[in-house]
Amino acid sequence: MTADAMPASAGFASLDALVRPRSVAVIGASDEPARIGGRPIAYMKERGFTGELWPVNPKRATVQGLPAFASVEALPAAPDVAIIAVPAEHATAALDSLGQKGCRAVIVFSAGFAEMDEAGAEAQERLTAVARRHGIRLLGPNCLGVFNDSIRFYGTFTASFEKGWPIPGRIGVVSQSGAYGTHVFAAALDRGLGMQVCITTGNEADVALGDALGWMAQAPEVDVICAYAEGIRESERFTAALDLARRNRKPVVMMKVGRSQLGGAAAKSHTASIAGDDAVTEAVLEEFGVVRARTTEEMLDIAYVAAKRIYPARNTLGVLTVSGGAGVLISDAAEQAGVEMPPMPEAAQERLRRLVPFCAPRNPVDCTAQVTNNLPLIGQFAESVARDGGYASILSFWTQTAASRSVGPSLREQMRAVRAAYPDRLWVMSMLAPDKVRDYEADGWVCFEDPSRAVNAIAAMGAYGAAFARAGQAAPEVPLPKVTLPEATPSEAVAKALLAEAGVPAVPEHACSDSEAAVAAAERIGYPVVLKILSPDILHKSEIGGVLLDVADADQVKQGFATLLDRARQHAPAARIEGVLVAKQIKGAVEMALGVFRDPVFGPVAMVGLGGIFIEVLKDVAFRRCPFDPAEAERMIRGLRGAPLLEGARGRPKADVAALARALSALSAFAAAAGPRLAGIDVNPMLVLPEGQGCFAADAVMELEGGSH
Amino acid sequence: MTADAMPASAGFASLDALVRPRSVAVIGASDEPARIGGRPIAYMKERGFTGELWPVNPKRATVQGLPAFASVEALPAAPDVAIIAVPAEHATAALDSLGQKGCRAVIVFSAGFAEMDEAGAEAQERLTAVARRHGIRLLGPNCLGVFNDSIRFYGTFTASFEKGWPIPGRIGVVSQSGAYGTHVFAAALDRGLGMQVCITTGNEADVALGDALGWMAQAPEVDVICAYAEGIRESERFTAALDLARRNRKPVVMMKVGRSQLGGAAAKSHTASIAGDDAVTEAVLEEFGVVRARTTEEMLDIAYVAAKRIYPARNTLGVLTVSGGAGVLISDAAEQAGVEMPPMPEAAQERLRRLVPFCAPRNPVDCTAQVTNNLPLIGQFAESVARDGGYASILSFWTQTAASRSVGPSLREQMRAVRAAYPDRLWVMSMLAPDKVRDYEADGWVCFEDPSRAVNAIAAMGAYGAAFARAGQAAPEVPLPKVTLPEATPSEAVAKALLAEAGVPAVPEHACSDSEAAVAAAERIGYPVVLKILSPDILHKSEIGGVLLDVADADQVKQGFATLLDRARQHAPAARIEGVLVAKQIKGAVEMALGVFRDPVFGPVAMVGLGGIFIEVLKDVAFRRCPFDPAEAERMIRGLRGAPLLEGARGRPKADVAALARALSALSAFAAAAGPRLAGIDVNPMLVLPEGQGCFAADAVMELEGGSH
Repeated sequence: MTADAMPASAGFASLDALVRPRSVAVIGASDEPARIGGRPIAYMKERGFTGELWPVNPKRATVQGLPAFASVEALPAAPDVAIIAVPAEHATAALDSLGQKGCRAVIVFSAGFAEMDEAGAEAQERLTAVARRHGIRLLGPNCLGVFNDSIRFYGTFTASFEKGWPIPGRIGVVSQSGAYGTHVFAAALDRGLGMQVCITTGNEADVALGDALGWMAQAPEVDVICAYAEGIRESERFTAALDLARRNRKPVVMMKVGRSQLGGAAAKSHTASIAGDDAVTEAVLEEFGVVRARTTEEMLDIAYVAAKRIYPARNTLGVLTVSGGAGVLISDAAEQAGVEMPPMPEAAQERLRRLVPFCAPRNPVDCTAQVTNNLPLIGQFAESVARDGGYASILSFWTQTAASRSVGPSLREQMRAVRAAYPDRLWVMSMLAPDKVRDYEADGWVCFEDPSRAVNAIAAMGAYGAAFARAGQAAPEVPLPKVTLPEATPSEAVAKALLAEAGVPAVPEHACSDSEAAVAAAERIGYPVVLKILSPDILHKSEIGGVLLDVADADQVKQGFATLLDRARQHAPAARIEGVLVAKQIKGAVEMALGVFRDPVFGPVAMVGLGGIFIEVLKDVAFRRCPFDPAEAERMIRGLRGAPLLEGARGRPKADVAALARALSALSAFAAAAGPRLAGIDVNPMLVLPEGQGCFAADAVMELEGGSH
Repeated sequence: MTADAMPASAGFASLDALVRPRSVAVIGASDEPARIGGRPIAYMKERGFTGELWPVNPKRATVQGLPAFASVEALPAAPDVAIIAVPAEHATAALDSLGQKGCRAVIVFSAGFAEMDEAGAEAQERLTAVARRHGIRLLGPNCLGVFNDSIRFYGTFTASFEKGWPIPGRIGVVSQSGAYGTHVFAAALDRGLGMQVCITTGNEADVALGDALGWMAQAPEVDVICAYAEGIRESERFTAALDLARRNRKPVVMMKVGRSQLGGAAAKSHTASIAGDDAVTEAVLEEFGVVRARTTEEMLDIAYVAAKRIYPARNTLGVLTVSGGAGVLISDAAEQAGVEMPPMPEAAQERLRRLVPFCAPRNPVDCTAQVTNNLPLIGQFAESVARDGGYASILSFWTQTAASRSVGPSLREQMRAVRAAYPDRLWVMSMLAPDKVRDYEADGWVCFEDPSRAVNAIAAMGAYGAAFARAGQAAPEVPLPKVTLPEATPSEAVAKALLAEAGVPAVPEHACSDSEAAVAAAERIGYPVVLKILSPDILHKSEIGGVLLDVADADQVKQGFATLLDRARQHAPAARIEGVLVAKQIKGAVEMALGVFRDPVFGPVAMVGLGGIFIEVLKDVAFRRCPFDPAEAERMIRGLRGAPLLEGARGRPKADVAALARALSALSAFAAAAGPRLAGIDVNPMLVLPEGQGCFAADAVMELEGGSH
C-alpha cells in the first residue's frame, strides 16, 4: 500500500505516547523487582528500553540502581507516559500532579475502582474527571498495562515473562482482561508466534478496546490483531478501529465471550461491562470482516496463518494428500467451513493418472503412498495442483512421511521448490512431525498437525480476503430521509404512512371513519379485504380480536365494522377509536418480519427474519447496524436459514427479494435518520409477493421514547 | 464389573487368533527388514514377540536370522495366524494351502483387489470363497494389518514405528483406512497416549469394522476404542459390537467421514464402501452412545480423558479459575457442549467470600490472582468446589501459574492433595505449562492447554455416562405386531387401516363409493369434512387436485364428489377409482410427518419431523432404527429444533406428544415386523391435537417392493 492510499489514522495515533513512549515515569517505583511497582523497571532494565526511565519514589535515592525522583514535580520533564502503581487512594493525586507536569498519557495499575463496588465506581469517576481536565489519555485503572517489545517498552506488571520474552513478530493483542490477554501472549510464545505488542484495557475509564484496536490498526508494528472482549462499552471508536483495520488490510480475530446465558452471567460478575446483546456484537463483527474465534487455540491458529498476509478474495482450496481417508476428512471440514474445493481440470487429472494409475486426481488429489516409492512424483503432483488447479490455498497432507528418514528430506526439498515457484499461494502443511515444523516454517510454510484446524484457519483467510475486497469498493452512501417523528406513539396508519414515505411500502389501505366509507374503500381496493380497528391506543390489535380476515363483500364490511367497534369498546373502553382500516388482503405471499431496535451501545439495529415460528422458535434472524444499502440488506436476507422459502423451495414462485431488500434498507435509513427518540419499529408481517410484484407491510408498530400518553 | 455381570462376548472372541496369536507364519517373508514381507518379522524380532514366528520363503534357509520354511506344508503346525505378503495373483493359492494346513486366521496385505477394478473385485470374491470354504477369518485384503503390543505381536507393515514403539496404555484403534489408522496411532504417540492395539480392516472381504470393534469390546487389552470409518458395510456385527462395548462400559469415539457431499464423493473414489446416508449412521451411533469426533484431535482428546474411566451419568461441571475471563469462556463452551454448571451452595459461596472478599464464588469459582499472594487459599478453594459443589467433573484453570517458579510447586502440591481426597471425580487441569504436564498426569490429572477443548472432552464423558446408565436399565421389549402386507401397493384407505391396526391412529373417515354414502358419512363424522379421491393408482392426490378441504354441508359433499371424479378421469384416465374418502377435518393441530424407509445397511429406519418447511427447508428431522419403544420415540421428538412448537410455544396449547410417541413407536414396530418387502411409509401430515386428545394420520402412503403394477 502506498502512503497516498493509506487511510487517515482516524486520530488513533494519539495513543502513540502510551504504546511507543520515549520517556517513562513510574510512580510508586519499587526497588523490589518482583513487586508491582518494581516489575516494569526490572523488565525495561533487563531488555534495554530505548528511552528514558524515571522511577519516582520519595523515600529512595535510587531504585533498582537507577536514580530516583522524589516526586512528579522533580522529574526533569513531562514523561511521554507515566505508570501509576500506588494504592487506589493515592492514584488521583498522582494523576493530578502528572497532569500539572504536562504528562498526557498515564497507565493506572491500581485496583479498587469500578470493578469493586459503588464507592470504587465513584473514585473512578473522580479519577477520570482529573484525566479529562488535563487532557490525559488514561489506560486502566485496574489494568495489567502495555508492552511494546519493538522498543523494549514494558509498562506492565504481568508475570508472564517467566516463560520468556516476546519473540519478533507482528501479531498484536488487545484485551479487556489482563489475565486473559497475557494468557494469549504466553500461549503464543509456547507456539513460537511473534506477538510483540500487547495492550490490556482494564476498567476502560478512558482508553477503551476501540482505541487500542485503532492504534494497532494504524501502527507499523502490527500486521495482525488478536482481540479479547467481554463487553463492548462504546461503538464509535470501536467501529472506526475495525473500519481502519479493514482498510489497512489488517485481519482482526476476536474472542468475544459471554455468548451463552451462563457466560453472560459470569461476564457481569467479572467486569462492569455492558455485555450487550451478543447477536448485535456478532453482526457488527461480521460487518467489518472480523473473524470470531471460539477458542484461544482457534484465535492463535488464525493469527499464525494470517501473519503470512495472504488473504484471497476468492479462496479456492486444493488438497494434496497421501491418504485417501484424510482427503475425505478434509473435504468434510472444507464443506463445514464453507471453503470451495473446485476439481482439477480434466486434462491435468488425465496427466496425473498417467503418473500414478490408481491415484485419485480430482481434488482432494490423492497421490497415494506410491509416491514414496518414486520420490520425484511428489514434486510433479504438487506442481500440478498449484499450476493446473490454480488454487488460492493449498493444503498438503503428509502425516508421518515428513518425519521419515527415507522420504522426509526429498519431500521437503521438492515441496520447497514448488512453493517457491508459486509464492502468492497460501501453502499449508499438515504433518505429524513436530521436529520438522521449524524447518518447514523456515521454507515459508505454515504447519498444522490436525488437518481440520488447518482448514478452519484457511477459511478465515478467505473471509478476510472477501471483507478487504468489499472495503476496497466505494461504499455506496445510504441517503437518509428527512424524518419528523410525531409527538406521541403513532397509530398503525400513521406509522405506515411515515414508513411508506421513507420507502417501506404498505398494503393498499384506507382509514375509514364510518361503514359507508369502509364499503367504498373496499370496493376500490377489491375483495377480499382485511378490516382492522384503528386506534392510537391499541398497539396489539389481534389480542382484542381487532383484526378480521377474508371480508368478502359489502355486507360483511358493514357487519365487520360494527363488530370491531364493539370489541374495542368492550376490551379497551378508554381507547380513542378513529375508525377502521380497510386493506387489501394479500394471499400466497411469504411472510417476513422486519424490525428496528435501539442497542444501548451500537444505536439503531435492524432485523429481518422469516415470519412466525422462524423467528420465535428457531431464532432465524439477521441483524445489522443502521443504515445500510439494499445490497447489504439482500446479503442479510439470503443468509437466513429459511431463505430457500424465498428462493422457490417446495414449488413456490421466487419471492421479490430485491423489493424486500430495498424496503429493509429504507427502514434502516429511516431508523438512522429518526434519532434516539425512536425506540423501535416492528413491521410484521411484511408480505413478499412473487418476483417483480413487490412487498407490502401489512402491519407496523412504531414506539417512541416518552411517546406513550 | 464382576465376571458374572460380564455380558457374553457375542462371538467376537473368535478374532483372538488374529489379534492375540501364539504362533505367526509370514508367507512371502523377506530377509530385507524394510520390505513389506520383511517388516512384521523385523518388528517382532526387535520387540520380542511372545510366541512362535515362522517365516515362509522357498528360496532361503533363513530369513532375518530365523530358520525359514520352504512352504506352508513344511510348517511344524498350523499357525494361529498367517500373514500373506505375496502379490495378489499368488494370494489365493497361499490362502488355500493355509486352510489345508488347518490355519483359521489370515491377514492379507496384498493389494490389487476390489479397491482397484472389476477384475480385482472378482479376484477378491475368489479369495473370499476359499476363506469361507476353510472357515478362515480373513483380515483384508489390501490392509495394513494388526498390532497388539501387549504380546509384541506386529502383523503389520506400517512405517509408523519410525516415530517410536507403542507405549503402555489401553486405548485401541480400529480403522478402515490403514494410512489413517496409523496416523491416529502416531498422533497418539506424539501426545504420549498409550495406544497398544490397532486393527486396520482394508477391503473387509470378511472381517469388517464391526468384528474388530467387537473384539475390542470384549478384550481385556482395551478400555477405550477409537474408530475410523468411511462407510459401514454391514449392520449386524457393527451394532452388536457397539452394544457390547456399551454394556462393558467401554467408550467408543468414532470419526465417520463422508458427512459432506464433497466428502461423500471423495470417500467413494477412495474405497468401495457404501457411504450410506450419513444421517442414518449418525442415528445409529447416537443409539449406542458412541461419541462422534469431528477431528483427529478431538478423537484423541476424548480418548485421553476416557482412559480415566470416569463416566458420570449426570455430569455436572465445577470450574475453579484464576481468571474471570477464562471463566466466561469456559461457561460459553459448557453451554455450547450441553454441560450443566450448577451454582455452588449459598453457604459455601459465603465462606469463600470471607476468604477472598472480591472473589466470584458462584460457578465458575473465580478465586482471583489474590490466591497467588496467599497460597494456602488455593487448596481451600479447590476443596470447597469438590466438597461443597459436589460436581462430577472439575475443571481447574491456572494458565501460566502452574509453570511459575514461585507459585507452581505449592499449587501442584495442594491440588494433588485435594484430587486424592476425591478420587471419584473427573479432575481436569487447563494450564499453559507444557513442561509440567507429565508431573500433573503422574498426580492423576488430565491436562489441556485450551480450556474449550477440555470442556468438549468432559462433555463426552457425560454422554458416555448417560449411555452406559441407559444400557444398564432393562431395555423394554418392543412387541412386534403380526403384519401381512398386501400383494400390491395399497390405497390410502388400506394403508391407514393396516397402520391403525398396528397402533398408528388415522383420522375418522369412510370410503364411499357414491355421493349418497359420502353425505351419510359426512353427517356421521360432523362438518367440515375433507374429501379425497380414492384410488390405488393415484399416490400423490394433491398433484391432480384430488383433495378438497372445508367441505361444509351435504350439497358441497355432492358437488365435491362429482368434482373429484371429474378430475381423476381427466388427469389419470387409466386409474381404477374406488370412490371418495370422507374424513373429519381437524383444525388447530400441529402437523408432523412420520416415515419409514429401508436403509441398505441398517434396514428399516423411522423418521419424525415437524411438517412442511421444517422438513423440506430446514431438514429438522430425527432418525432411528426400527423398532423402538415410546420413550425413545419421545426422545426423538423432543430433540427436534422445532419441538417448542409442540411444547406450547407462541401461546399454543401443549400438543399430545405422548400419543405421537406411541404412534411413532408403533410405526417402527410395524416396519420391523413387515420385513424387506416394505420399501417405505409416509404418514404426512400426522395431526397432533392438544394433550390428551391424541394424534391422527391424515394421509398415508405405503410403498412395497415389486408392489407397483
